[in-house]
Amino acid sequence: MDILSENNRLAEWNRGYFEGKKIVCFNMVSSPGSGKTTILEQTIRTLTSSNKIFVIEGDQQTTRDADRIEKAGAPAIQINTGSGCHLDAKMIQTALKKIEVENQSILFIENVGNLVCPALFDLGEKKRVLVISVTEGDDKPLKYPYMFKSADLCIINKTDLLPYVDFKVETVMNSARQLNPALEFILMSAKTADGMAEWYEWLGKQ
Amino acid sequence: MDILSENNRLAEWNRGYFEGKKIVCFNMVSSPGSGKTTILEQTIRTLTSSNKIFVIEGDQQTTRDADRIEKAGAPAIQINTGSGCHLDAKMIQTALKKIEVENQSILFIENVGNLVCPALFDLGEKKRVLVISVTEGDDKPLKYPYMFKSADLCIINKTDLLPYVDFKVETVMNSARQLNPALEFILMSAKTADGMAEWYEWLGKQ
Repeated sequence: MDILSENNRLAEWNRGYFEGKKIVCFNMVSSPGSGKTTILEQTIRTLTSSNKIFVIEGDQQTTRDADRIEKAGAPAIQINTGSGCHLDAKMIQTALKKIEVENQSILFIENVGNLVCPALFDLGEKKRVLVISVTEGDDKPLKYPYMFKSADLCIINKTDLLPYVDFKVETVMNSARQLNPALEFILMSAKTADGMAEWYEWLGKQ
Repeated sequence: MDILSENNRLAEWNRGYFEGKKIVCFNMVSSPGSGKTTILEQTIRTLTSSNKIFVIEGDQQTTRDADRIEKAGAPAIQINTGSGCHLDAKMIQTALKKIEVENQSILFIENVGNLVCPALFDLGEKKRVLVISVTEGDDKPLKYPYMFKSADLCIINKTDLLPYVDFKVETVMNSARQLNPALEFILMSAKTADGMAEWYEWLGKQ
């Protein structure tokens, strides 16, 4: 796997850069449409008065998410992957050379919406945050094990929709913990702000 | 792109095989958890008395979907892609040599849940059916243009959840049609069976 070993090498460069500048970097991964951008918008609005926040946005096309992030109040750089299905460490390195992420800031990388390929690509992040929504079905850990194995935190989002869907939170937690016993969970509804306090607390600990 | 040209060559083999046996093949693509398997279960229960139906199931892991399909009454073969993010024409060719799909039957291929990579891989199908759910957000065509460009039919699923989410059907249709003017649409709730009659009619026309 030459691509992956080259990626891992560049991820170390990123990790060194973050360490050098005391930047804490989170890689946000999920299916398409599970609510990453909405979570980030709320997070920026709440935390930006006391923290410097930067965002790198990955999408196949459009600068739509970067525009939303900038409107929420954080500098954002958009990476369009074209037909590509994930961000890799080289793209992050290139972005880091373009925007000057300030010392001691928080950097969120919003990956391409894809539960498969981004699992394999270390970007040099401190923690990987997996967002799933309750509308996606509770069999996702079994079907996308690499992503659940590689994550540090799993946000179960859109809990406001739980009354309308067949989704057992316990089923997800149990099967995900079999793959990854250290995985942490936060139940969230970015729409009603449930779980956001817990999320800020988790971020604070990092 | 050597991988893609090799894939296109093998997709032609598949297309020839389907033509030779009068098999009509549909490639079902979507995000994780948008409801492909539920649609197929219902379709099999309804159409299997008058049609021979076979299913090839793609997932990173588990035979969960193949088990659901077999329970619904159709022979299924599961392809586990491991860390792979899509089915390719070679996997389909290999599966076709393993299960004997009968002459004049319908073959559904349920691709790995991923809006990105499967867009690039022709499997030799007659039509590509894209399923999106109303919980995924109405910006998906702009953000995943390759998939919307490559599809023949777009099923907008889980319409029973429309009252609880911010999703404008018109927005999706307009932006998808800009990418792909020939794209057809069916609004569906596999849960309440809305739109299923229209889907069976569409299948019948193929």
